[in-house]
Amino acid sequence: MALGKDYDYAAQECSIARALEIIGERWTLLVMRDALYGVRRFNHFAEHLRIPRAVLAARLRSLTEAGLLEKHRYQRTPPRHEYLPTERGRDLWPVLRSLGLWGRACPPGTQPLRTFHHARCGTELGSYGECPHCATAVPPCEVETRPGPGAVSAPGDPVGRALRAPRLLLQPFEIEDPM
Amino acid sequence: MALGKDYDYAAQECSIARALEIIGERWTLLVMRDALYGVRRFNHFAEHLRIPRAVLAARLRSLTEAGLLEKHRYQRTPPRHEYLPTERGRDLWPVLRSLGLWGRACPPGTQPLRTFHHARCGTELGSYGECPHCATAVPPCEVETRPGPGAVSAPGDPVGRALRAPRLLLQPFEIEDPM
Repeated sequence: MALGKDYDYAAQECSIARALEIIGERWTLLVMRDALYGVRRFNHFAEHLRIPRAVLAARLRSLTEAGLLEKHRYQRTPPRHEYLPTERGRDLWPVLRSLGLWGRACPPGTQPLRTFHHARCGTELGSYGECPHCATAVPPCEVETRPGPGAVSAPGDPVGRALRAPRLLLQPFEIEDPM
Repeated sequence: MALGKDYDYAAQECSIARALEIIGERWTLLVMRDALYGVRRFNHFAEHLRIPRAVLAARLRSLTEAGLLEKHRYQRTPPRHEYLPTERGRDLWPVLRSLGLWGRACPPGTQPLRTFHHARCGTELGSYGECPHCATAVPPCEVETRPGPGAVSAPGDPVGRALRAPRLLLQPFEIEDPM
C-alpha cells in the first residue's frame, strides 16, 4: 500500500487518501491507463510499459484483488489469461483524464501527445471529460483516442504502434502473441 | 521522482506518466490537497497529515521547485514561511476531485466523508469538479467543502476541527500558532 500501514486513514477522513491506498502505488495508474486503452495481456502490458515483469505481475495481482481488473482465461492449453477492467476500474477514467490534462501542460506550451474525442461526433472532450457538443458526460467506451501533434517518436512495441492510429478506448488490441 | 529515472517517459508519450513524475510521489497529493483546503503553515500540514517532519520538508521543497507551491515569508523575526498553491497547483483541483470521488466509493456503499459544492448555487460538484447546475468548470476558490454523513470521528488537530464546518477552499485557517 502506497502510504504505509502506519497511516491513519480513518483520522484523515479523506477519500483521496483511500483512493491513493489502492492506486497510489508506483505503476498502478499506468497499468490501469493501459487497461483502459484496451491492453489485456501480460506481454502487451510488459512491452508497452517497459515495466519489470515481477513488478507487473504483482500489480496485476493486487489490482485484481482490489476489484479493478478481472482475470479471464482465454486459452486452455497452455493456460493463458487476460485482464479486463471491471466497472470499478473503468470508473477511474475521470482520474486518468484529469491527470493527463494536467500533465499535458508541463512544461507549459507542450503540444498534446494524445487527444481524446467523443466517438459519436468527433468533438474533443472538455476539461471535465464531457462532450461540449453533445453536452453529456462521456463514458470510456465512447471515447476515441488519437495521436496528438506532440507525438513525435515511433514506439517500437505493438501496443504503441497500434495507438498511433485513432481507436476506441477499451477495444482489445489485435496483436499476434509471439509466445 | 515516483517512477525512477530509468523510466522512458518520452517513449511512453503520455501526459499521465509526466503528471505522475511530479505528483506521484508518496504524500505529494495529500500535501496538495491540504494546500487547496487552505493549509499554509508547516505545523498545520504536519499535524493534519501526521506526516514525518523530514518527509514533509522534502515534499514542500520539491513542490515549490516544481512550481506547484510558492513560499512566502509572513514573519520577519523569527523568520516564518507559509506555502501557497500557485495557479499550476490550483489546477490540480480536478485531479483531486476525481480521485476523491472514486475513493469515496470504496468500499461500496461508503457514506461520503466530505462533500464539495459550487459556493454560488450550493450544487454538489460533478465527477471532474464541474457544476452540473451552472454547466461550468468550478475553480477551487468557488468550491465549498462540507463534512459529509460519513464523517464520524472528531479529528484532534486544529485543521481537522476547522474542516468540520462548511468552508471555502483556499481560505486560510485562522489558527493560533503555538510556536
